[in-house]
Amino acid sequence: MKLFPLLCFLAGGLCWAQSAPDAKPASTNVLGAAYPQIDAEGRATFQLKAPGAQQVLVQLPQGKFEMAKSADGVWSVTTPPLIPGFHYYTLSVDGVSVNDPGSHAFFGTSKDASGLEVPEQGVDFYAAKDVPHGDVRSRLYFSKITGAWRRCFVYTPPGYDTSLAERYPVLYLQHGMGEDETGWMVQGRANLILDNLIADKKAVPMIVVSDNCYAARAGQAIAPLPGAPGRSGPSTAAFPDVMINEIIPMIDSTFRTFADREHRAMAGLSMGGNMTLRVTVPHLEKFAYIGAFSGTLNGLSTDPLDPATFFNGAFKDGAAFNAKVKLLWIGMGTAEPNPFPAAIGAFRTMLEKSGIRYVYFSSPGTAHEWLTWRRDLNDFAPRLFR
Amino acid sequence: MKLFPLLCFLAGGLCWAQSAPDAKPASTNVLGAAYPQIDAEGRATFQLKAPGAQQVLVQLPQGKFEMAKSADGVWSVTTPPLIPGFHYYTLSVDGVSVNDPGSHAFFGTSKDASGLEVPEQGVDFYAAKDVPHGDVRSRLYFSKITGAWRRCFVYTPPGYDTSLAERYPVLYLQHGMGEDETGWMVQGRANLILDNLIADKKAVPMIVVSDNCYAARAGQAIAPLPGAPGRSGPSTAAFPDVMINEIIPMIDSTFRTFADREHRAMAGLSMGGNMTLRVTVPHLEKFAYIGAFSGTLNGLSTDPLDPATFFNGAFKDGAAFNAKVKLLWIGMGTAEPNPFPAAIGAFRTMLEKSGIRYVYFSSPGTAHEWLTWRRDLNDFAPRLFR
Repeated sequence: MKLFPLLCFLAGGLCWAQSAPDAKPASTNVLGAAYPQIDAEGRATFQLKAPGAQQVLVQLPQGKFEMAKSADGVWSVTTPPLIPGFHYYTLSVDGVSVNDPGSHAFFGTSKDASGLEVPEQGVDFYAAKDVPHGDVRSRLYFSKITGAWRRCFVYTPPGYDTSLAERYPVLYLQHGMGEDETGWMVQGRANLILDNLIADKKAVPMIVVSDNCYAARAGQAIAPLPGAPGRSGPSTAAFPDVMINEIIPMIDSTFRTFADREHRAMAGLSMGGNMTLRVTVPHLEKFAYIGAFSGTLNGLSTDPLDPATFFNGAFKDGAAFNAKVKLLWIGMGTAEPNPFPAAIGAFRTMLEKSGIRYVYFSSPGTAHEWLTWRRDLNDFAPRLFR
Repeated sequence: MKLFPLLCFLAGGLCWAQSAPDAKPASTNVLGAAYPQIDAEGRATFQLKAPGAQQVLVQLPQGKFEMAKSADGVWSVTTPPLIPGFHYYTLSVDGVSVNDPGSHAFFGTSKDASGLEVPEQGVDFYAAKDVPHGDVRSRLYFSKITGAWRRCFVYTPPGYDTSLAERYPVLYLQHGMGEDETGWMVQGRANLILDNLIADKKAVPMIVVSDNCYAARAGQAIAPLPGAPGRSGPSTAAFPDVMINEIIPMIDSTFRTFADREHRAMAGLSMGGNMTLRVTVPHLEKFAYIGAFSGTLNGLSTDPLDPATFFNGAFKDGAAFNAKVKLLWIGMGTAEPNPFPAAIGAFRTMLEKSGIRYVYFSSPGTAHEWLTWRRDLNDFAPRLFR
């Protein structure tokens, strides 16, 4: 794992304007786009034709990189080696954040943003391999609670269409803030991770459902952001109700599921981890498996939590919780920025005070990013429905 | 239908900087984006915060509109009424074409481009309605011909998962130049059009497959563009082979299809119409229904065609062609620019010389755009598999 972020903030003078001879167009590029390119060391070279611009930057999670202009008006820069996995990024043209026309767009940071997949040498658990592949279905349903058509993505495992007597357990898998139901199936590669785990017999065949955490009752579309005092955004307030009373019944009546708590899991990343706990903890009659990836019930708060009172005392009786919950799984990257380590730490301390069992997984060298969450899913899914 | 294009090219002085009180965020916006907005007359208001920019324009198919800057650095403009349906657009910031962060991105014009859905008053054949909905499945398959994983989208009609003894005919439906397999299911709303036609019993339940016309043998990714002398782009050269020898067998072995020519149709728009004819005409043993939407075998050429020699004389024996082909369907918008009317006209004249029967459909007031092709599908699909 390359240790990278600090280096890059300081790296202005170390950046190159030419890509290495072994550099290739990124897999996240649109068809025919030569840039961005990535070389064998994970260095990315960006280019943008902008003869009339005064200043062009690349803004990656790892830092900003000034681009240099050639005589023909093409701006370019090569970064130092980047952390592998998927990164959202933008170009800044004269101070305006814009997409890179060479990149596909991925819904994150509350817009369809450019994204860069940096290959991870010797790692293929999230690659398309020569194994049987499930389908990802886009499914429309009308929600009476929100008064709107909604869309979810449903992964059906290999064999679903041929083993017609078979029923399957279901994992509900939720995205983070500023993302939507596309996140896990595109940036997260959840379908490929499951295809590979199932082919290796490391996970049981399961259905995976990704829906959209943003769900508001009519006229209540904007709400205060949880854990961010003074800020507001699209509301997630109706989601627990939509999940329990609309999504689960719709999935169980549409797909060949086992419709009981022993065959139902929910997990999510960041805001989706918070949402997972908001949905599952009050409904342990419906869920036996819970995963919180880089996000817990206390959101961004790092205050100590008292199990006697926190979340209406839902965690105060550790023995009762342990008797019901077959798996509580918490994960985080070692390079996650504040407040995640302290907030998740406060939640873990609270669990430990009550003697609540949980699995803790640490992703080496990764921050609040998709490679953390791909690894989380790869560790979490094999533990389900055993 | 509003007659619009000429008006707009001349409309600089008629544009407003304020949206009407009844204006609402477009359905193509990302969650929470207030702009672009569209009013009841189809006028669109765009906004972009860009305090450091010198000039910002909106570039729509109907023309360019200069935006005006407010004291707080927000640029905006309101257009005259736009043609209904879906339009790709870009913002131009100091001469650089960029996406609108308020819009979702749609793969077209060879990039993930901003798109604007302008409501069509009183028309709902492509709306999500309270009818049974089919699923759209994203399916991965490995292509030996191209040496790569490829993706197609497969619409399965309502009832596919419950009527397990049922088999279905298949329509293969292809996108245009600079688009991909997402086009028909997103911009085209093919799934909603089929849902509505099937609910009204206007079309028989069918499977619809959209794949990607861009398919190159290894090392042959770039090829001359058909009908555009001197230009080259991503190659489509291997697609007919991929279609006949990989896609059709994969679909017939994966889904419950009727795997014969009487139950197989192919159609496409623009370059996809050209591709449809390139695939089907040499393989009438596999297809009985053919649709060419705003594109024919002669591409962009308007030269007269001699049926004795054109496409190896495939059209010279009209009686033989008519005996085999149950439907040849050609459509175009009345506002399509050159060379489409003359090129498609030359193809029709050639067919008529040979006495080949075909249905011709004309979309009033629309150009080379998605509303034309939604209407095409809505007329074409009911004629299939009867």
